[in-house]
Amino acid sequence: MAEKSQMKQAVVVRVDLKMGKGKLAAQVAHASLSAAEEAMERRPEWYARWKEGGQAKIVVKVQDEEGLQELFRKSRSARLPAALIQDRGLTQLEPGTITCLGIGPGPDEEVDMITGKLKLL
Amino acid sequence: MAEKSQMKQAVVVRVDLKMGKGKLAAQVAHASLSAAEEAMERRPEWYARWKEGGQAKIVVKVQDEEGLQELFRKSRSARLPAALIQDRGLTQLEPGTITCLGIGPGPDEEVDMITGKLKLL
Repeated sequence: MAEKSQMKQAVVVRVDLKMGKGKLAAQVAHASLSAAEEAMERRPEWYARWKEGGQAKIVVKVQDEEGLQELFRKSRSARLPAALIQDRGLTQLEPGTITCLGIGPGPDEEVDMITGKLKLL
Repeated sequence: MAEKSQMKQAVVVRVDLKMGKGKLAAQVAHASLSAAEEAMERRPEWYARWKEGGQAKIVVKVQDEEGLQELFRKSRSARLPAALIQDRGLTQLEPGTITCLGIGPGPDEEVDMITGKLKLL
């Protein structure tokens, strides 16, 4: 019998905005929670297994918004939970700036199909 | 009639570990989600209002683990959702290292009682 997949979440950050590290961490947390909530609703078994496994999470990078939008479309096509995050613009950035993208939790190999070639932030 | 409080979450990071920014962001996301889950269970109305308000979140800093432990005790005494995060130690840190603390979501003024004097990361 095949072993069950591990679950992971990836958060993709665009690096052209040059956010400060606190701002960046808050945006990543926002993406992580929003994508996780989608998983809770649509794939509760993925969410539960991800939590049991210690909520494995990687943070990777792309160059710009176009990179995020492309990965968002791919995630949707693959039926993975995905959340594109817009900043509220109270500090540092213009309101509505897209900062990052949460993908998953989902099976390791499915998330890797989307983000496996990206470098760690 | 008094206006209803805004809700916020604070994530407190210790700076003595000198984590890389991707590692740091992943730890902050872990703290944010874990504290948010406690709020979902124990104070669902706080959680709902926080989400409606755009999940306001700040990332602040303390020097070391002792600083995190003290704020964790204060948060528990104040009956705020709180989650102390241990790293799994797969990269960069020793397994079990406490990296950060999520507090809330809770009413702004209650969270500020605990973290209001800390500097933004």
